[in-house]
Formats: sequence, structure tokens, C-alpha cells
Amino acid sequence: MATSRSTRNKISKEDYAARVPELREQLIQLQVKLKKVPFPVLLVIAGVESTGKGEAINTLNSWLDPRGVEVFAFHPPTDEESARPYMWRYWRCLPPQGRIGIYAGSWYTEAMREASAKNADPKKFKHALQRIEHFERLLVADGVLIVKCWLNLSKEAQHKKLTKLESNSRTAWKVTPRDWESHRNYNLRNSLGKTLRKATNRTGANWTIIEAENERTRNVAITEALLTAFEDHYKQHRTLPPAGRPNKITPLEPEGVTKLKSLPLDKKLSPAEYVKKRDRWLGKLNQLVRLAAKKKRSIAFIFEGWDAAGKGGAIRRLTNAIDARDCRVIPVAKPTKEEKAHHYLWRFWQHLPQAGRVTVFDRSWYGRVLVERIEGFAREEEWKRAYQELNEFEHQMSEDGVIVLKFWLHISQEEQLKRFRLREETEYKRHKMNEEDWRNRDQWSEYETSVGDMLMLTDKSWAPWYLVSAEDKRYARLQVLKLSCRRIADALEAE
Amino acid sequence: MATSRSTRNKISKEDYAARVPELREQLIQLQVKLKKVPFPVLLVIAGVESTGKGEAINTLNSWLDPRGVEVFAFHPPTDEESARPYMWRYWRCLPPQGRIGIYAGSWYTEAMREASAKNADPKKFKHALQRIEHFERLLVADGVLIVKCWLNLSKEAQHKKLTKLESNSRTAWKVTPRDWESHRNYNLRNSLGKTLRKATNRTGANWTIIEAENERTRNVAITEALLTAFEDHYKQHRTLPPAGRPNKITPLEPEGVTKLKSLPLDKKLSPAEYVKKRDRWLGKLNQLVRLAAKKKRSIAFIFEGWDAAGKGGAIRRLTNAIDARDCRVIPVAKPTKEEKAHHYLWRFWQHLPQAGRVTVFDRSWYGRVLVERIEGFAREEEWKRAYQELNEFEHQMSEDGVIVLKFWLHISQEEQLKRFRLREETEYKRHKMNEEDWRNRDQWSEYETSVGDMLMLTDKSWAPWYLVSAEDKRYARLQVLKLSCRRIADALEAE
Repeated sequence: MATSRSTRNKISKEDYAARVPELREQLIQLQVKLKKVPFPVLLVIAGVESTGKGEAINTLNSWLDPRGVEVFAFHPPTDEESARPYMWRYWRCLPPQGRIGIYAGSWYTEAMREASAKNADPKKFKHALQRIEHFERLLVADGVLIVKCWLNLSKEAQHKKLTKLESNSRTAWKVTPRDWESHRNYNLRNSLGKTLRKATNRTGANWTIIEAENERTRNVAITEALLTAFEDHYKQHRTLPPAGRPNKITPLEPEGVTKLKSLPLDKKLSPAEYVKKRDRWLGKLNQLVRLAAKKKRSIAFIFEGWDAAGKGGAIRRLTNAIDARDCRVIPVAKPTKEEKAHHYLWRFWQHLPQAGRVTVFDRSWYGRVLVERIEGFAREEEWKRAYQELNEFEHQMSEDGVIVLKFWLHISQEEQLKRFRLREETEYKRHKMNEEDWRNRDQWSEYETSVGDMLMLTDKSWAPWYLVSAEDKRYARLQVLKLSCRRIADALEAE
Repeated sequence: MATSRSTRNKISKEDYAARVPELREQLIQLQVKLKKVPFPVLLVIAGVESTGKGEAINTLNSWLDPRGVEVFAFHPPTDEESARPYMWRYWRCLPPQGRIGIYAGSWYTEAMREASAKNADPKKFKHALQRIEHFERLLVADGVLIVKCWLNLSKEAQHKKLTKLESNSRTAWKVTPRDWESHRNYNLRNSLGKTLRKATNRTGANWTIIEAENERTRNVAITEALLTAFEDHYKQHRTLPPAGRPNKITPLEPEGVTKLKSLPLDKKLSPAEYVKKRDRWLGKLNQLVRLAAKKKRSIAFIFEGWDAAGKGGAIRRLTNAIDARDCRVIPVAKPTKEEKAHHYLWRFWQHLPQAGRVTVFDRSWYGRVLVERIEGFAREEEWKRAYQELNEFEHQMSEDGVIVLKFWLHISQEEQLKRFRLREETEYKRHKMNEEDWRNRDQWSEYETSVGDMLMLTDKSWAPWYLVSAEDKRYARLQVLKLSCRRIADALEAE
């Protein structure tokens, strides 16, 4: 779909006064409808400088019911933001389902700012646009409506506007040196704007160009763009029920299960051997983590595995090598209500480590292609799409310096049964068991197939899977330490 | 209550192995009980260096059900943190009711770090301790259980421990130059620790000193401190029902209502006069806000007033003077479920402006002494305590450079009725009305009394109340602009 352009003639004061009540009523109706559908609306107000983006947002905000709207504006990144993957700051600012986020400039502001700086690298701009495109694509696929308005003003009109404001002592304060500077850069910014719109115009996230010379026309055009896009989206939107448990889990990549099943589970370590080797590897890991921190690299450990495979224990030994202040363990359980009202990756973005820090995920985003696939919490097109989404998610982390390591802790069905029984017998371990564990166990072969597909489809150079035999806990813990050291050392050397 | 000291003899390996399952079972039982009571538990692990705080936390964390615990550790403040009032970063990290937060070092770390630096100002330390004491007092009053463990180690034992670790090639990595540095500073840190404990030891937030030479003894002692404190707190804890609507609202400060009622409501402005003056004051305000930003001062505008008094309109005009990227409007509605599971000030702390930015609160923390008092959502001792809590809250903001302004927009009962009727007649305004508005209106005199008390008890030099006649919207909007300019100018001059 092409960029549409809202070119209407200047609206007179009288027409405006007549029109506004109707628009306001429609906006309120939009919000009433929105509350009942499982998607949020993002309204992006970007464009040329001196087009009154702030005024337009204030006006629109005053027409909407404030309890359902939030306005977001972005300064150059803070250090908490620049210490994290590029898009982190925008994932922080997403409204949940049923609400509207209005973005002053949005993610486009920073991309434009960087690209219009002196000696800007055009490749960096292209890269930023790719990330934005990817971000919006993920959201659109999830049902989010993104309405993007590009406020336009000719160079002449901009000059006229600034001059007029400056000439009146009552309004001169509205003009800052920055305004004149961007006026001088008009041609560059205009051409960057074209590139930007072309690269990020897509169904579900189309640009509407809005002539902003007259503020009444501008306000009406933005409101109409929002109303029209919402109506279209609302009509097309169907609330699909979750798939329900599928009858059969068919492998996408049958090799995966074979690989999983062929892992030898007979490796063992004696307590004495373990203790001797453990301290040495802990020391090595400690040094590597500190070296990574010095280089401002962060590390994301992802632990997946069968119930009772010993994830908790392995994580505890691992984190003993790391300063508690530099390390967070995130236990991933069922999403909360708030988390469910967002994109499934939202909650994980919140927890990405800062540069130089470590995050350990005890279970992870792979739930999407495991439990959600098997229980039918995600529809087929959703979990199938997820392999690529997860690869891209980890690729973004890796590009921004995060070292990603993924472990699958593997045990046999017999060993699991033994451990389940032990848990039930041990008072302080009983809380770890519930019916779900037994139900999951009954679906061993469905999980095997899904794990196999996961291993085949998401084992990437930037985020490799390590398949670890966990039949013997000591062996598994040592393997985790060794593999972690190897991976971190490799990642630091490859710099 | 005095600091208690947990001095037990060294626990043997065998005793430990026998003891641990029992402790673990008790911890799990604690968590089961905790889920059902409306308070969170904060476990602070502070103390001398090289006492294995991290290890102790890892162990405890592994004994608890990870779904109910979060571990927090603090580095020196990030720029997002140092751009906000001192305690902001700790308010960010509070668990909700029913959960446990474990703090490695906690708010005490930063206070100790500052105080043990070269040329540290003792007054600053004292001030930090006051703030911490205030913070903990607020939480304790709200029913939070704070368990504070101070891990102790003699200078000799510390030396022995570091030397032993260093002498073994497998454990030498555990010792960093920072460890030796704090060893050299042992006496200073030890004496600061004493001062700190003395200043912050109070019922509900007592210190337990734990001898940490032996790690088994240490782990058991921390766990026992937590279990004992919890049992005490649990027994004393009574789930009090909310008060229910009180029969009568009796003024605490009868002068307040008189003051409110005597505000002349006949001030008016013609449209022409208004427009002329408005632009001039908007310009002045814009300059002042920019000057404040340059001086890294932030501004918090608080708007309270009768329903339909025109808060939204006044806020809109005000924000027209401020760059949208520097300004956030926070509409304050009923607390969400998550917000209700925290201290009532928690949600407001999240929204405090960064240095140089502006936050406008459309309604605010004063709900505590208005709607919560009148409807009985807060018990009498709670709302009565709140005046001082709110004063202290604003005082902290002010000390850290936030300019605080509070407006009460006042209208007559007749004017409100007129505006309610107009809202009901205007399609796009109808959503603004609900039954609650009519119910609140029926309690006009209860509100008058409560507003009067609020004006008398929370009108402070660092956070003054401005009583604005809003019978004429134009007059009110201009007054808000003028008073804002005056207050900001005064605050900047007083620096």
C-alpha cells in the first residue's frame, strides 16, 4: 500500500468549530470500542520541524478520554537506555491492549537526529530503519494498529512561519535557535524523511502525509487519519480463539528429535572430581565475565530443559561465579495479566541486561514454541512465525553486544520419574510439584518433537543451543560452566 | 527495641545437613502464608565486606520458591536515577504484597559508599540515614515487614579469610583489589556501620547482627532471623477492614473551610483580554521552564479541584508553553491492582520528573486525604498520618531540586451543576460524567471540610497551595499561568 496523502484545503474557523464536536464524539466512540478488543493503537506524529507536533498532540489528547491514552516523547537516550539494545527504550513505552499511545516523534526522531548530524554514516541510518521496520512488523503481526502521520511543510512555509512568530513579541519565545538550524538543513532532512517513509511504509503501519501549514487543517487531518485507520482495522479484526490443544504434533524438522534422542546420557562425575574441577571453572568463568564487563559486553544465559532436569541447581552454581550486583536471575512463569496484554516478547525486552551485566533466564521466550505450541495457547501461524521472530530478537541482542547462550538440559523419562518421586517425598521440595508437571510428562513425545524443531530452527551462530546431558547433575553443572567459558571466550575474541 | 545479635557457635557439617531440610520447609511455609496477607517482606543483607553476602543470598534464594522472590542489588546510581530524588531508585525496587524482596546491600550500600569516600561530608551521611529512616518508617507504618541482617566479621577474621582464598589457585579469583581496600578501611567502615545501625534500628525494621565467619552458621542465622521476624509480624498482623464511610466528617482545622468559602468567585476575563494576556504569560512561563531546565531543576505541578472545575483545560493551556518532550501529564485515577498491592505513594514515586523535566499531575496523592478519607478507603489513622507523610514526600522532592506547585481549582455548587448539565447534553463530553460525579456532589460539604483541612495542613513553603477561583475558566487559566511564573521565578532566585 502506498503512502497516502491528506491534502485538503484550508479549513475555516467556522467549519472547524462545526466539525470539532463531531470528531471528538467519534474519538470517544473509538476509545469505547478499543477497550473491548485485544489490540493497542500507536499514533506516531513525526515529520518536518515547526509543524506544531506538540500542539497537535495536546489538542488530540484533550479530545480523547485521558484515562485511555498515554503520550510518549523521546530525548537522546539516557545511559540506562544506551546500555541496552537499540530498541529497548521503545519496547519500554508500549501501551497494553485497549489503550492508545501517542508518540511525539517516536523511534523516528532518534533515527533522524543521528542521520542529520555532521559526518553521519548512511549505513547506520539504513540499519536503524531496518530495526524500526522489524519492530513495527512484529507489532503489526500481533494485531497492533500503528497510525503514522508525517507532518509536512514546505521550506518557504516554514520560513514564513518562523519569521511571523519571531516578529511578534508575544510569540517570539516559540522560536529557538534549533528551529532555525533545522530550517537551514531543510533539504537534507526532507530527503531523509522520504527515505525513511519509503523504508517503513507497510500494511498496518502506513504513513499519511499531512499538510501542516494550517493548524486547523492539520488537527482535523490527523484525527481523520486515526479514525479511518481504526475503522479499517476494527472491521478486519477478528478475535480468534486460541487453537486449543492440537490433535497431533508433527515435526517441522524431523532430524531434531533424532538429534535429541541420540544424546548420550551416561556421562558421570564423582563428587571429588566435580569439586576439584568446579572451582577451577568457576574461577575461569569469573575472569571471563569480568573481562566481558570491562568490554561493556553483557551476557544472557537461557536455560530450558525438562521439568526436574536441574535448571535451578545449574543456575545457582553458575551465578556463584558472578558478583551478585552484576547478575539477575529471571524465573519465567506464566505471563501475568499485564504481560498478556502486550506482545509476547514485551516482558523479555524489559529484562534484557545492561552493558556489562548478566541476566539468567530460567525458562524463556522459547515457551512460545514449546508449551504454547503444545497446549494451543498460540495459534499455528503464531508459533510457526515465532522461530524467525526469536532468531531476529536474539540477533538484535547480539548485534548490540549481548553474548547469548542457550542450554537445553536433557534427561531420560526414567530419571524424571525418579526425581518427581523424590520431590513428592521431600517436604521442602513438594511445592515444586504440581499436576501440570505430571501432565507435561504425559506429553513427553509432543515435547520431544517441539524441542527437536526448536533446536533445528533456532540454533544460530549468534545464539547457539547447547544440548547438555543432565542425567548426572554434577556432570551437567560442570558442562554448563565449561560451555559458558568457551562461548564467552570465543565471543570476546571474535570482536 | 535494641539491635539483636545472633551469636551461635559454629555449626558442624553434619548438624547443618540435618538442619537445612527443616529450614527449607519452614521457608516454603512462610511463603505460603505470605501469599495470603497484604504485606510484602524486605530482607536486607548488609554489613562488612567479604562476609559472603552474595553466596548467602544465592543459598537463601535456592531454598525459597523462586516465583515469590526477587533479588535486588544496586550499583552507583545511573543517570536516570541520579536525575531524580535520592530515594527514587529504591521505590522502583519494592515487591508487592505477598512477595519477598531480597536486597544485596540495599539502600545502605550507597550511603556507606559515599560516607567512606575520601573527604566525605559527615552531614551528608546523616542526611542519607534520615531519608532511609523515613523511607523505612513509611513502609513499616503501611504494614511492610523489613528484616535487616548486618553480617559481621572481625578485622582479623577478614584478613584470614582473604589470605586463605588468595593462597589457593582455585579460589584466588574471589579476591579483588576492592576487597583489600575495604580491609584497609575496616575501622572506618566498622564505625560507620555502628552509626548507621543506631540511626535506623526501629520496631518493624530491626537490625540483627550475624557473625559471618562460618558460612553455615551465617546461612542458618539469616534464615532464622527471617523466620522469627515473620512469625512475630504475622501474629501481630490483623487484616483490618477498610473503615467504611464515616458518619460525619469533622474538621481538624476549621479555619480551612472558612478560607475556602471566603474565596471570591466573581473574577472574570473577557475573551479579548484573555488572549492578549495569555500569550504574554505563556511566553514568560516558557522562558522560566527553560531556565529551570538549564539549572537541572524539575517541576511538579499538582492539580486538584472540584469535578468539572476545569483542571483539564487549565493543564492544556499550561502545557502549551512547554516542549512536549520535556513534559508528562499523569492523569491519576483509581489505583490499579498492582498499585493497590504497594504503598499508596509508590505509584507517584514512579512518575517523579527527571531533573530538568516537568510532570503535571491531574489529581494526585491528595486523594489520600480527600476521597479516601470521605469514602473510608483509608482508615482514620491512615489518612490522619498522611498529612505528615505528604509533607515529607514533597519536602524530599524539594530538597532534591523539584519545584512543587499545587493548585486547588474552586467553583461554586451552582456552577458545577451548570457544567454537569452541559456535559450531559454534549455528546463528546458525556463520557466525562458518571454516577460517581453526582455522588461526590452530594458530599459537597464533606469535601469542603476535607479540602479545608488539606489546605491548612499541607500548605508549606516548599510546596504551597494556590487557591484559584475557577468560576470563570479564562480567569482561572490565566491565574494558573501567572502563579506558576511567580512560583518558579521565586524558586530559581532562592537558589
